[in-house]
Amino acid sequence: MMMNGPNLNQLGKREPEIYGSTTLNEVEQQVKKVATGLGVELDTFQSNHEGALIDKIHEAYDEGVNGIIINPGALTHYSYSLRDAIASIDIPVVEVHISNIHSREEFRHQSVTAPVTVGQIIGLGHHGYELALIALLNVLRGRENE
Amino acid sequence: MMMNGPNLNQLGKREPEIYGSTTLNEVEQQVKKVATGLGVELDTFQSNHEGALIDKIHEAYDEGVNGIIINPGALTHYSYSLRDAIASIDIPVVEVHISNIHSREEFRHQSVTAPVTVGQIIGLGHHGYELALIALLNVLRGRENE
Amino acid sequence: MMMNGPNLNQLGKREPEIYGSTTLNEVEQQVKKVATGLGVELDTFQSNHEGALIDKIHEAYDEGVNGIIINPGALTHYSYSLRDAIASIDIPVVEVHISNIHSREEFRHQSVTAPVTVGQIIGLGHHGYELALIALLNVLRGRENE
Amino acid sequence: MMMNGPNLNQLGKREPEIYGSTTLNEVEQQVKKVATGLGVELDTFQSNHEGALIDKIHEAYDEGVNGIIINPGALTHYSYSLRDAIASIDIPVVEVHISNIHSREEFRHQSVTAPVTVGQIIGLGHHGYELALIALLNVLRGRENE
Amino acid sequence: MMMNGPNLNQLGKREPEIYGSTTLNEVEQQVKKVATGLGVELDTFQSNHEGALIDKIHEAYDEGVNGIIINPGALTHYSYSLRDAIASIDIPVVEVHISNIHSREEFRHQSVTAPVTVGQIIGLGHHGYELALIALLNVLRGRENE
Amino acid sequence: MMMNGPNLNQLGKREPEIYGSTTLNEVEQQVKKVATGLGVELDTFQSNHEGALIDKIHEAYDEGVNGIIINPGALTHYSYSLRDAIASIDIPVVEVHISNIHSREEFRHQSVTAPVTVGQIIGLGHHGYELALIALLNVLRGRENE
Amino acid sequence: MMMNGPNLNQLGKREPEIYGSTTLNEVEQQVKKVATGLGVELDTFQSNHEGALIDKIHEAYDEGVNGIIINPGALTHYSYSLRDAIASIDIPVVEVHISNIHSREEFRHQSVTAPVTVGQIIGLGHHGYELALIALLNVLRGRENE
Amino acid sequence: MMMNGPNLNQLGKREPEIYGSTTLNEVEQQVKKVATGLGVELDTFQSNHEGALIDKIHEAYDEGVNGIIINPGALTHYSYSLRDAIASIDIPVVEVHISNIHSREEFRHQSVTAPVTVGQIIGLGHHGYELALIALLNVLRGRENE
Amino acid sequence: MMMNGPNLNQLGKREPEIYGSTTLNEVEQQVKKVATGLGVELDTFQSNHEGALIDKIHEAYDEGVNGIIINPGALTHYSYSLRDAIASIDIPVVEVHISNIHSREEFRHQSVTAPVTVGQIIGLGHHGYELALIALLNVLRGRENE
Amino acid sequence: MMMNGPNLNQLGKREPEIYGSTTLNEVEQQVKKVATGLGVELDTFQSNHEGALIDKIHEAYDEGVNGIIINPGALTHYSYSLRDAIASIDIPVVEVHISNIHSREEFRHQSVTAPVTVGQIIGLGHHGYELALIALLNVLRGRENE
Amino acid sequence: MMMNGPNLNQLGKREPEIYGSTTLNEVEQQVKKVATGLGVELDTFQSNHEGALIDKIHEAYDEGVNGIIINPGALTHYSYSLRDAIASIDIPVVEVHISNIHSREEFRHQSVTAPVTVGQIIGLGHHGYELALIALLNVLRGRENE
Amino acid sequence: MMMNGPNLNQLGKREPEIYGSTTLNEVEQQVKKVATGLGVELDTFQSNHEGALIDKIHEAYDEGVNGIIINPGALTHYSYSLRDAIASIDIPVVEVHISNIHSREEFRHQSVTAPVTVGQIIGLGHHGYELALIALLNVLRGRENE
Repeated sequence: MMMNGPNLNQLGKREPEIYGSTTLNEVEQQVKKVATGLGVELDTFQSNHEGALIDKIHEAYDEGVNGIIINPGALTHYSYSLRDAIASIDIPVVEVHISNIHSREEFRHQSVTAPVTVGQIIGLGHHGYELALIALLNVLRGRENE
Repeated sequence: MMMNGPNLNQLGKREPEIYGSTTLNEVEQQVKKVATGLGVELDTFQSNHEGALIDKIHEAYDEGVNGIIINPGALTHYSYSLRDAIASIDIPVVEVHISNIHSREEFRHQSVTAPVTVGQIIGLGHHGYELALIALLNVLRGRENE
Repeated sequence: MMMNGPNLNQLGKREPEIYGSTTLNEVEQQVKKVATGLGVELDTFQSNHEGALIDKIHEAYDEGVNGIIINPGALTHYSYSLRDAIASIDIPVVEVHISNIHSREEFRHQSVTAPVTVGQIIGLGHHGYELALIALLNVLRGRENE
Repeated sequence: MMMNGPNLNQLGKREPEIYGSTTLNEVEQQVKKVATGLGVELDTFQSNHEGALIDKIHEAYDEGVNGIIINPGALTHYSYSLRDAIASIDIPVVEVHISNIHSREEFRHQSVTAPVTVGQIIGLGHHGYELALIALLNVLRGRENE
Repeated sequence: MMMNGPNLNQLGKREPEIYGSTTLNEVEQQVKKVATGLGVELDTFQSNHEGALIDKIHEAYDEGVNGIIINPGALTHYSYSLRDAIASIDIPVVEVHISNIHSREEFRHQSVTAPVTVGQIIGLGHHGYELALIALLNVLRGRENE
Repeated sequence: MMMNGPNLNQLGKREPEIYGSTTLNEVEQQVKKVATGLGVELDTFQSNHEGALIDKIHEAYDEGVNGIIINPGALTHYSYSLRDAIASIDIPVVEVHISNIHSREEFRHQSVTAPVTVGQIIGLGHHGYELALIALLNVLRGRENE
Repeated sequence: MMMNGPNLNQLGKREPEIYGSTTLNEVEQQVKKVATGLGVELDTFQSNHEGALIDKIHEAYDEGVNGIIINPGALTHYSYSLRDAIASIDIPVVEVHISNIHSREEFRHQSVTAPVTVGQIIGLGHHGYELALIALLNVLRGRENE
Repeated sequence: MMMNGPNLNQLGKREPEIYGSTTLNEVEQQVKKVATGLGVELDTFQSNHEGALIDKIHEAYDEGVNGIIINPGALTHYSYSLRDAIASIDIPVVEVHISNIHSREEFRHQSVTAPVTVGQIIGLGHHGYELALIALLNVLRGRENE
Repeated sequence: MMMNGPNLNQLGKREPEIYGSTTLNEVEQQVKKVATGLGVELDTFQSNHEGALIDKIHEAYDEGVNGIIINPGALTHYSYSLRDAIASIDIPVVEVHISNIHSREEFRHQSVTAPVTVGQIIGLGHHGYELALIALLNVLRGRENE
Repeated sequence: MMMNGPNLNQLGKREPEIYGSTTLNEVEQQVKKVATGLGVELDTFQSNHEGALIDKIHEAYDEGVNGIIINPGALTHYSYSLRDAIASIDIPVVEVHISNIHSREEFRHQSVTAPVTVGQIIGLGHHGYELALIALLNVLRGRENE
Repeated sequence: MMMNGPNLNQLGKREPEIYGSTTLNEVEQQVKKVATGLGVELDTFQSNHEGALIDKIHEAYDEGVNGIIINPGALTHYSYSLRDAIASIDIPVVEVHISNIHSREEFRHQSVTAPVTVGQIIGLGHHGYELALIALLNVLRGRENE
Repeated sequence: MMMNGPNLNQLGKREPEIYGSTTLNEVEQQVKKVATGLGVELDTFQSNHEGALIDKIHEAYDEGVNGIIINPGALTHYSYSLRDAIASIDIPVVEVHISNIHSREEFRHQSVTAPVTVGQIIGLGHHGYELALIALLNVLRGRENE
């Protein structure tokens, strides 16, 4: 499962100097292609609603999804509700940010979700989602071996 | 009216060492039973959407609900919108937290909704909802006597 | 486009000593009348859902709306998602607050949306929306002249 | 055991708009009556001396008291010594505040004792002591069942 | 009365990318023209001296001025003396800032005068003074109707 | 009533470069002499125990004392319990500090009792107690005239 | 020398619930009368200009004034220039505040001038100036005796 | 003189994983034995009362005690009164903490008494008292040699 | 070039519950193998000396290295010198942390080097170095295409 | 142009242990002599009035002054108005402090004017003005060469 | 092993009023003598290089050293790298400071290494090293007995 | 002696828009030439190692160097060890920064070394080293004259 939060539906349309000119749909197709190549299935979801993201996380967990790649958008910086949703599930979550949030505004330096995710991939563009997928598979393999 | 915020639909499913193993539905049924015993009617509502909780508070007030028991989940710590919704109604609201938020992470120590509620019941488990019901009835009795 | 955030649907009903006794509907009709007098069309939207406001901003931009007047309610003080939505569109946005947020609680002194709007009109009651409309037209005229 | 800290001996005499007009003695009698009704014995203690409260907590523990209801008064906000006394005993302690400390001065928003108590009941007037008694019995019952 | 604080005499001369290229004199003439159109008389005053601004506020009040539009320049951010002068008079004061102070340096985000003014108009260029005039007349009309 | 807090019994014995070489007893006798000259009776009390000072304030109030001069010593900087004791009585209290607390360590710059006293006299040596007596009589005269 | 800072010329005219209804001129006459009774000469000075107050302090010192009573008004809270002027002279300065600045807004709790004065008299109304005069004479007598 | 503050009478009874299982009495006997071995006399004192500790410090000083070993318990973190008592005497004081306060809760990292003691011995268990005794004798020998 | 800072030479030896049991040498060999597979050459360097790391960065840049993978160890949190070294070179740098620094001690949440790197890969174990290598190649390919 | 702010007219008269015993007039004459030696003309100005300094900066700029040496005295630490005046002119400004402000009180460590000056010369006594003159000429030469 | 950090090689040469006049070499010889008396072997090491200290800690651990006495000098206050080195080894480390760091500059009050050491001995001069040796032996004896 | 810290060996190579295009070697030669012109000898030293800089300062002092010009690079902002090294020697040290650190990132605004140097020369480019040399000679001349 690959989830994107508020305003990421605008990807490729808004502020291309920060986020590039590929649309979210194109990014999702590209990551799905990589997933297929790796022999795994990938669902995608985007919403501007904090509540819808939380509902989806609960649902994904109940449906047996193995791991989640999430870019919570600006919710990263204040949504303790999203944090609790991530903390409440047993499957690994990898956090992705397209831009380097540490070289932007002060408020973007803090991630309230990071402490409850497995890891973060930051500033590496759309490619970050693909890296997160590889990372997630690696984490899952590690857990199986335990 | 008894309201629960984000992730409380997972009660009894997630992190039982913190929240116990009773589900939200079971808790709601138990509090309703107590309500019936006390001769009052109790509606319940849960949502992971801040907006839906606010809509419900307005609606409850318009429909003449006498008081509200609310556990805003993690919204407690940042939702000034929920705070304003509570502040905008004339009926008493009692805030409940199942776990002792003061012995958990730093960010859980602050409640932005507490200043506009009548009182808070914290750390006393599911039983806290029942105590809140008793407290609410007592507050309402007090107001009638004024 | 004139947008209002959480709890502003209660305008004229709650806390009249702060917000006055005119309802949101009446305010909207009044501003629309002024808009008509100025030869412009004005749509209105209110929601208690952060996500719905963001959806609407994206939609308005896609539909070619020329400018937005927004009173984000309490989302003003923490919704970085709303901020990003405003920042992601090229049309001017003017922020309005009915009451003087600087003479109220400490948390109301900070606006996370203000830095990405063109300007703010604060504390001038419902009349503030009309001033914002005039200001917006002036900004748009200025941009045309560039 | 029900303990009250500094200035609570003035209850019913000082600032009735905050604390009501019932005296501490009357409150204690009322809670004792409820205790008797519930088949338990309740001792009461009040002191303006931090040291006396600590001595009493040690003594109560040594004498086999089952649980403590405590309103530490203003010591709540700075007495790490009282906190250590509570933390050093194995029996459950429930903290009570008559007024809603979160809607009063900034310094009253922090409780240094809360993290080492089982839970807190805040803002529900004298009735809060009774609720604390019920809560304490419930906690004790829960411990017995473990 | 329209008052301008330190460095606003340089308007149109300094940093045109922030403040535009119209001089203060031109702005004052324009607002006076609008005032005449609205049937009111407008005096203007500018000084780089905090003390002179305070003297003028006292004097204006003593002479029966009905309202004040003030842009305190950088005094906005630290002059508690100017704040006290504004607080000490019974007539409405509207604060104006030409640029959007919230998208500039950190120190410009705080206004020590805002809490004692009726409202603020920020970031709307020279046009802000005209809007402030309209707003002031509206406030005065509202007070008459009380 | 003139009250002195922790360590003031050491006056004239410890750190004479800060507190002078007159003993507390000598200071008390001198202020009593002034009191007699002004036709009023003055009791004195000193304790190193926060609780004893609070007990004494309650007692003084119950016994009809008209006003209190208090130097809380270092309790000034953290004793919210003492603050509440002062706040709970209706009679005027004047706070005295022998040394200029604002030119000493950082922690001495804050007084938690000052907001609930009528006024403070700071840095004027033992003479400060006499000034406080005069001030107190003046305040009492003012109240009588109301 | 008795000096008063910004807005104190409005004494008795503005906000009488905080500052009383006696004018500055009446207060000055009253303190002068007391001075005469004590056999000393007292000059008075008021200005809304920080620079004029500093000029006056230098001048007073050069002319051999023996001591200064100063109420710096709101300059108290930020004027490090005034602080330096007081620190640069060898004669004792006593700071006076009519109202209890510690029970008002947060920003009034800090005095940047207090550390370089001999002492402060706060919250005791106009009478504070008279007490300051007595205190000043006492300090000067003490210095003579050294 | 060896002094222990609040809750240290519980030593060996409470939280043995932090403080060990030796009682305070056993510790005191052990240190006394070491003292005898070193040819010095050692008195011991424990109280849960801040005031009693201050009284004892004054008394010890008056009686000619040569040095003090003190573990102020949780008073370490807020008792400026205890700090002043230590600062007011001329004899060396060594501060002891049984556990490593720097690896525990945040509030235990600050010691308000440390700046006025000669030195601190932290985290070395009951043995810390013996080391403090040796250190104290060494300091006293050093002073004699001056 | 792959660089590791202080204490990473202890990898696999210290705290295996945080860092795993593979030694740094094994990790380096594994990443080199991956590099070879991708047709690129990888040098490795580890030092406990901030200065040696800075020297190496300068040297690498002068020798035409195309990109750097760096795990600065605890220097991440305070070495502004290392930050300046990274900022001074034109080649892309990717920051790696083996453990999730955001779920550990507070001081580990801030990275002073992150703002001058291209991106960060955090919490994904030794695998993070391999991901960083892939990411770096992707960034370099992107630059070539510009 | 060489400008000096509040209290610098007292140079050589006040606190010689910090500022030396040369008067401002002597310093000005000395710097003028150096200026003459370097073939440039130097005007001097001192005022205790923030507004007068701002007026002078505007005037100097309008009259074609090539550069300014300024010691703003204590205005350095809070006068954002002075900062704006400096920022509004295109000519280089060098800031001078006679004493080492970083080894004095905390509040002197921050300079609000430094960010808009070319550079600062601090702690080098009266000689600092001469160095500033040399530096200013060097900066001007550099600009000419561009 | 006894280790000393930056500038401690200057012991006895620099600032004798703080650190005494014994050289580091003399101190080391003295502690070695005590060690011999206690039947243990003691190596010593001093470096001004953070990296060299870390290298030495790793080396000591690998060579089977039983415990370390360390005075990290000013590295105490910011070297998280040194902290990690100490945390990574299993042997007990005792931290020593010659002067009372809590009565010196603010920045010296925080020790980033203290939380990962067994204990600290502060302010007791060179004698502190000897006490640390005794303490270390005691800790080791305790571990053997476990 | 002229010392330069981390990354200054890259001068003229990195970020020329901030630091110019002259290399450190050229700067050193230029300052040496000026030194020769002034009849003094100047040694230069640069290192990226904090420890090497400290060693050099000790060595310089032992070898009788008369004064030091130091640009500590980014160590300026956190190296308390370097600060202690400077504080430990009796010869004057002048701190130089090529760029105006106060108009750059927040973390560059604080200098931990400034309080123990004689003075600072900031933002005046390479010329700053020459000014520092002149300043140093002046300080030394002043000391000789004492």
